[in-house]
Amino acid sequence: MESDDQSKNGFPVPTRVSRMRRFPTPPDLEKILPRYQLASSAAHARVLMASGLIKAEVVDQIVTGLEQIGQEFAAGKHFINDDDIDLYTALIRRLSELTGTVGERLNQGRSDEDWLATDVRLWVRDTLLDALLKLIELRTMFLQLATAHEDVFFSAYTHMQPKRREMLCFHFLSVESRLRQDCERFLDLFGRVNLISAGLDNQILLEHPLDRGLLARLLGFDGIQHNTFDSVSEVDYVIEFASCAAIFGTHLSQFAGEMLLWSTQEFGLVRLPRQFSFENETFPDRKSSEVLEVLRSRSASLGYKLTEILSQLKGIPSASSHESSEVLSALNELIYNLDFVLELTKTILPALIFDIKRMTDLSEVDMANRANAIDYLIEKGFAPDKAVSLVEPLVEYCRKRKRTMSDLAPGEWMQFSPAFDRDIYKYVSKDESLGTSGPRYELVSQAIGYGRQRLAHDHEQLAALSSKVKSLTVEVPTTTE
Amino acid sequence: MESDDQSKNGFPVPTRVSRMRRFPTPPDLEKILPRYQLASSAAHARVLMASGLIKAEVVDQIVTGLEQIGQEFAAGKHFINDDDIDLYTALIRRLSELTGTVGERLNQGRSDEDWLATDVRLWVRDTLLDALLKLIELRTMFLQLATAHEDVFFSAYTHMQPKRREMLCFHFLSVESRLRQDCERFLDLFGRVNLISAGLDNQILLEHPLDRGLLARLLGFDGIQHNTFDSVSEVDYVIEFASCAAIFGTHLSQFAGEMLLWSTQEFGLVRLPRQFSFENETFPDRKSSEVLEVLRSRSASLGYKLTEILSQLKGIPSASSHESSEVLSALNELIYNLDFVLELTKTILPALIFDIKRMTDLSEVDMANRANAIDYLIEKGFAPDKAVSLVEPLVEYCRKRKRTMSDLAPGEWMQFSPAFDRDIYKYVSKDESLGTSGPRYELVSQAIGYGRQRLAHDHEQLAALSSKVKSLTVEVPTTTE
Amino acid sequence: MESDDQSKNGFPVPTRVSRMRRFPTPPDLEKILPRYQLASSAAHARVLMASGLIKAEVVDQIVTGLEQIGQEFAAGKHFINDDDIDLYTALIRRLSELTGTVGERLNQGRSDEDWLATDVRLWVRDTLLDALLKLIELRTMFLQLATAHEDVFFSAYTHMQPKRREMLCFHFLSVESRLRQDCERFLDLFGRVNLISAGLDNQILLEHPLDRGLLARLLGFDGIQHNTFDSVSEVDYVIEFASCAAIFGTHLSQFAGEMLLWSTQEFGLVRLPRQFSFENETFPDRKSSEVLEVLRSRSASLGYKLTEILSQLKGIPSASSHESSEVLSALNELIYNLDFVLELTKTILPALIFDIKRMTDLSEVDMANRANAIDYLIEKGFAPDKAVSLVEPLVEYCRKRKRTMSDLAPGEWMQFSPAFDRDIYKYVSKDESLGTSGPRYELVSQAIGYGRQRLAHDHEQLAALSSKVKSLTVEVPTTTE
Amino acid sequence: MESDDQSKNGFPVPTRVSRMRRFPTPPDLEKILPRYQLASSAAHARVLMASGLIKAEVVDQIVTGLEQIGQEFAAGKHFINDDDIDLYTALIRRLSELTGTVGERLNQGRSDEDWLATDVRLWVRDTLLDALLKLIELRTMFLQLATAHEDVFFSAYTHMQPKRREMLCFHFLSVESRLRQDCERFLDLFGRVNLISAGLDNQILLEHPLDRGLLARLLGFDGIQHNTFDSVSEVDYVIEFASCAAIFGTHLSQFAGEMLLWSTQEFGLVRLPRQFSFENETFPDRKSSEVLEVLRSRSASLGYKLTEILSQLKGIPSASSHESSEVLSALNELIYNLDFVLELTKTILPALIFDIKRMTDLSEVDMANRANAIDYLIEKGFAPDKAVSLVEPLVEYCRKRKRTMSDLAPGEWMQFSPAFDRDIYKYVSKDESLGTSGPRYELVSQAIGYGRQRLAHDHEQLAALSSKVKSLTVEVPTTTE
Repeated sequence: MESDDQSKNGFPVPTRVSRMRRFPTPPDLEKILPRYQLASSAAHARVLMASGLIKAEVVDQIVTGLEQIGQEFAAGKHFINDDDIDLYTALIRRLSELTGTVGERLNQGRSDEDWLATDVRLWVRDTLLDALLKLIELRTMFLQLATAHEDVFFSAYTHMQPKRREMLCFHFLSVESRLRQDCERFLDLFGRVNLISAGLDNQILLEHPLDRGLLARLLGFDGIQHNTFDSVSEVDYVIEFASCAAIFGTHLSQFAGEMLLWSTQEFGLVRLPRQFSFENETFPDRKSSEVLEVLRSRSASLGYKLTEILSQLKGIPSASSHESSEVLSALNELIYNLDFVLELTKTILPALIFDIKRMTDLSEVDMANRANAIDYLIEKGFAPDKAVSLVEPLVEYCRKRKRTMSDLAPGEWMQFSPAFDRDIYKYVSKDESLGTSGPRYELVSQAIGYGRQRLAHDHEQLAALSSKVKSLTVEVPTTTE
Repeated sequence: MESDDQSKNGFPVPTRVSRMRRFPTPPDLEKILPRYQLASSAAHARVLMASGLIKAEVVDQIVTGLEQIGQEFAAGKHFINDDDIDLYTALIRRLSELTGTVGERLNQGRSDEDWLATDVRLWVRDTLLDALLKLIELRTMFLQLATAHEDVFFSAYTHMQPKRREMLCFHFLSVESRLRQDCERFLDLFGRVNLISAGLDNQILLEHPLDRGLLARLLGFDGIQHNTFDSVSEVDYVIEFASCAAIFGTHLSQFAGEMLLWSTQEFGLVRLPRQFSFENETFPDRKSSEVLEVLRSRSASLGYKLTEILSQLKGIPSASSHESSEVLSALNELIYNLDFVLELTKTILPALIFDIKRMTDLSEVDMANRANAIDYLIEKGFAPDKAVSLVEPLVEYCRKRKRTMSDLAPGEWMQFSPAFDRDIYKYVSKDESLGTSGPRYELVSQAIGYGRQRLAHDHEQLAALSSKVKSLTVEVPTTTE
Repeated sequence: MESDDQSKNGFPVPTRVSRMRRFPTPPDLEKILPRYQLASSAAHARVLMASGLIKAEVVDQIVTGLEQIGQEFAAGKHFINDDDIDLYTALIRRLSELTGTVGERLNQGRSDEDWLATDVRLWVRDTLLDALLKLIELRTMFLQLATAHEDVFFSAYTHMQPKRREMLCFHFLSVESRLRQDCERFLDLFGRVNLISAGLDNQILLEHPLDRGLLARLLGFDGIQHNTFDSVSEVDYVIEFASCAAIFGTHLSQFAGEMLLWSTQEFGLVRLPRQFSFENETFPDRKSSEVLEVLRSRSASLGYKLTEILSQLKGIPSASSHESSEVLSALNELIYNLDFVLELTKTILPALIFDIKRMTDLSEVDMANRANAIDYLIEKGFAPDKAVSLVEPLVEYCRKRKRTMSDLAPGEWMQFSPAFDRDIYKYVSKDESLGTSGPRYELVSQAIGYGRQRLAHDHEQLAALSSKVKSLTVEVPTTTE
Repeated sequence: MESDDQSKNGFPVPTRVSRMRRFPTPPDLEKILPRYQLASSAAHARVLMASGLIKAEVVDQIVTGLEQIGQEFAAGKHFINDDDIDLYTALIRRLSELTGTVGERLNQGRSDEDWLATDVRLWVRDTLLDALLKLIELRTMFLQLATAHEDVFFSAYTHMQPKRREMLCFHFLSVESRLRQDCERFLDLFGRVNLISAGLDNQILLEHPLDRGLLARLLGFDGIQHNTFDSVSEVDYVIEFASCAAIFGTHLSQFAGEMLLWSTQEFGLVRLPRQFSFENETFPDRKSSEVLEVLRSRSASLGYKLTEILSQLKGIPSASSHESSEVLSALNELIYNLDFVLELTKTILPALIFDIKRMTDLSEVDMANRANAIDYLIEKGFAPDKAVSLVEPLVEYCRKRKRTMSDLAPGEWMQFSPAFDRDIYKYVSKDESLGTSGPRYELVSQAIGYGRQRLAHDHEQLAALSSKVKSLTVEVPTTTE
């Protein structure tokens, strides 16, 4: 037998949260870059051939060598060893071991900085496409949640106090709306990321410039970064990527914070199934919503990486400084955490169990005036608990009759306590916030319709970008992560 | 008639929160520095005299001039005008207008940077003493709150879920303990702030060094900063001050966040009187706890200033850079906000109305097992609200009998729902967290005693520092802010 | 008689840097918002009329009242007074004083939060258009600098060491290229800013929704923000604006840092005219490049505001929290500083005097091998200054003969010191970085052409946006800042 | 034959910078904590025995088990496996495997949070002592550098322009003075770190409190943290540690930035031996000072961790939140980077080769007036390079005659260019900054004396702290890192 609410959400619930490492560490950058090094090297060989600098058979030797290195890497054997200065000298050394002097010819018309700059763009591009895909999945989920709760009212809060009866689906739609703009931002950024920066560096030593357009096409880039001077050290697209991620992080962090609040026993509006509880060996039976805190804190951490990147880059000369390497380390952590919070949200979201009945009940209570009446009695000298106990029946009285306190006659007030004088009317609000009329239903269907249409549009755009990028004419040697 | 709880807290409640500016701006630095410029100038004149560089009557003329400038400033007439480069040239110009060429002789053996560095130290020292005084007031209040609730139990939370029956006064004691360490840090810092940096700069142009020890004594400094090279640009004590303020800010921000949570209608553990509500013209009767959000956000802002200061100083040469001026702007905002949150807390704290009855009631409920039992039913397929409604009577049953669910017999479970099978025992916790025994009372009186003793000690130390600083031998011309 | 270099830059040089306040304070938000309050109120009145909620003559009365308030404000008489809760109640009160009860009818279908949200979007929109205009001016200047130095070579640096002979204009083109992407980002953002958020809030109390499309048209918005739930508290566009500003700040901060380095006497590549020096009363004749430090530090400060905004928003509930107000304070400082650094750069840039001859000379020196040869001698035991004095003539020898050290014969080395053994060839680099051939000239003219074309395009796009926004059908009462 | 300057510095120069990982990753926290887990567990067993909760033979079994686990860990076999929830359940599980049910008795009177809190304090304490030791080594080096250059003059800079002839040793003394205050701060902090927090948590379930004083003594703690409520989640000492590290980071970052500037070929004041150059496979002979950039950027990163920690802790409830775990991750990175920059500075510092002759020469030049004279000519219409070439001989003329330009007669000016009119005297400064008299030598010997005395004092204090901590009565099982 299944929970109604869960099946209404329409998602499978995972049997158990995979054991989360309490102190996670991002993967080593030296494990991430090789797949891009290999792809960009194969493409570079073709470009050299097109410029007449190497012959077709040399390209074949090089590509064969790269493929073998890729297979070794996939099998867990990294090409770098302790005597190598870095990944780039390491790859050329290994290629030379496999192909003889042919390997070193890859260094023509390309500096290591050039090469690294290209690889980082490939990496960020992959990350962007992956994040976009997951964002679209999340938006789908939030739209489903909105649809599934189209007719549910709840008590919306401002400043953590009940403000007004509102439709629950608006809450989901507002998150979806934010994620939609996250997608927009990432898509806008895509055009600035997907440019080849490989450029002038070292080509200066050649008589004729290499065909950068060909390199761009081979690697699926949209075009050429026209800044040729410091394009290898320019990392604006990294800052912008971090900014977009940080804004997105704010969204998740706020959503997590809100669910955490709702999941307290006092609010009691939402629950996570037990398999989402962090276990505790002393009290294995004690539930905790720590997983929501994980989401709140880890998604906020995207912003700290942005801060770090910005601070590193302050005031340094525009050409290469070591600060650029530090930026890559920060980027690595950022990408790791971005993916982590995307995956975590995808796992948590379908598992949330909303207590619709409690929400509805609370939304029918004149909470603002409840507080006003309690305050009134406290100011008259009643102890807080006494005040609460006198007001509760009054609240129930109104709820059953669907009345608001501001409409009660003096005599009705007196029934609950003689302390309720005529000045009570200065305290209670004439707020019509309990109404369910107004243009709400119209707005809901508009918003859902608009959301779906934009989702379909973005999905299509992403598919187009992805397919273009994946169908590179140069085969990337198989690698694993 | 007064609320019992309020009178127990023992503080007067302000009649109305003074209208808070929604978008406050710190005072202009050019209004803050003059009082220190005047004091340090009067002292400098004496030092020049002691070195035989000016005569006693010149000192008299200078001091008379400074006093007049101080009176004008106090009367709202600033000595700076549009043609002055900055506050320092302005003061010398005005002094020269009043005293003739005598004024310029103050420039001997002191550069503007020297002078500014001394004034900033005087300003930070004043700020430190003032903050310490207010911290001690806050600690007194928290100790009073602890004493007033020495025998109250409440349900302590971890991860926002009830964890264990605990003594309320521990909560207040823990805040006091943090503020105590804030005091310690500020006191440790005092020794590093209260050193005169005025030094080598420009004295190099004199044949003999000025008597820096005399200057230190005249201005109430403990001694001389032994770094003579870049003492005028060294602002470590500002970073350290910002660090201490940021740690303190974390404490207030967390306390405010917790009170905000407790003041939700769902938690209902604490209230702010209506006069603390931010008004709202649309719904003048609607309460809001925004003032607690103000405390939470503004106290966190102390940390942002620290971040700004640290980032500004990254990697710049150790001697003067404009970044030092930017640091002073950040310091100004920091000092303004530090005082704001200290004052706000002093106002809010005595006005808090705790609902002791509700706290006690909640602490008697086996909340952890309440949640476990609800989860059990939800996993068996009940809707959340149904599960809650079945478990509530069970909770009440236990509370009245002072029993925990883990002790109930299978038959007792069955009374509340036949769905409660024997596997319920896998869900409920054997936690004895409802106990009130243990070494608690002993620990409480120890902790209160220790707190009081340390408070008295710090109070005394502060009084000693303040009196030494206030009794400067050079009269500071009266100024207002 | 004018400096050649200045006239080549083609800009007028300001006679004197306007006195910069050392400790600037941003203007009061309460002085900034009124102009937007008035415009949005006039539009709201029309919308109420269109929905049949008020009559045409009431609109006339309201607009007349608003115009009078605008004139009073322009004349320096603010409508807020000490008893007003905030700007919004203040405006309605003043309007009511002028028009009787008619004023309060503006509250229909609009909450204060709604209203403020609209005004902030109008403010950010204005700021965006203004920043874009100034960015385009800066890009024009950088392109002019590039054109003016199309045939100049200099010694490009990496890690602050000379790397390779390069064309100076690439340096200017690279900055222009970054500013171009700043424009792109601001333009992308424009579409997300220029949406009306005014929405559901309080309309719920009406029977029919107001015509938000009409409001959008009247205020020049492109459309409606489809998130109706928390659109009044959603400030993503503010975070994104801060992000874009922070990235731009990084560009200026790096440019300023580089010019600062170049303007040291040791580098001697660029000068600022004396009128840009910060004066110093002790040594009025001493030059300082502090104005470049001002640019470096203040432009970096844009990033600190972003950090503050992100931190404030972490984990708070999505609906109104006081943190949103704090965000507006940070935004105010950000806007102030953004404009400050834009204006400062516009002033500094045309005044820079490049020492073309020195640049050219340095670019002809084999600097990398100069360092290698010095190191060689130091490792052989020479004191650093001795090593330098032996290598300098060698450097000159090569420069005159247009040779690189790697091509010198052993005997040639020995002429300069017998210490130069055959192992010197292990130290000197075969680098051909002194060449001036390669595809450089081609790349330069491509890059300049591309830059101009994009500039024209962006200029046009900005003009279109501006004209649309300025031609609002509702006349905004004249106000000053 | 050795370089004179190096031997004067008095330190051995490392033969080669150990290959630095370009993208370093801090060690896994799960590798760091075990050594502290084992030590605190052995001590806890003794405390349980002292309270009569377990017998002596059980303690023996437990300690034997812990020792074996320690040996396995040292041999590379970690006790955690994939099914363990975390390090704490893992250790108890492994202990139980080795000792039977005895292992689980360690859980008495101690929660995991308690245990972790103790271990983190042990870890931070170790780190503090280690950092202090290295700081003292650095201070020793800086004092040696000062002594070795006691009579050298150089041209001190402000705003990157030469300001005044100054003694080089002041530069080293000023860094030492900052590091001295870093030591002071760390020592002040020690007293707040070295308190046992292990406390109330879970002891509540015992009839009598455990002897926390005994635990403190066994683990070398100075006393008990008196906050018993949330002592396990209170991480103020971590924030303070991060603050101290961040201030220290600012010092190193500024020192590195300055050395980087000095090491440009244009300044030419300092060199790093070639073995410190980052290699470059394209141009293996090209020197780079990247290692100084590494120091600049990595030491600044200590501040970013502080920012992260402060942001994580904003506004969360004071009791356990997941944010505390995130703080530990940030702490781990911080500790890793702190040690990295301490070690790197220790390696770089003794290897710096100062060009004393160049410094002395530059200090004899009237640089400020050199710039003024050049400006004068530029304003008269000369091209910058022409102006420079006219002024250089004038500078040399003054230097040889030990005169300043302000003293030259009009006729002397005219010898160098007829363009030098009488108004040149409005440009040149009467600055006596070239003097070498004044109280400098006196101040130097005072400062060195004071520095040595404080160094000896701090060294002694550290030794006392270390020896107390190391002589724990409970033997910590041998572990490696």
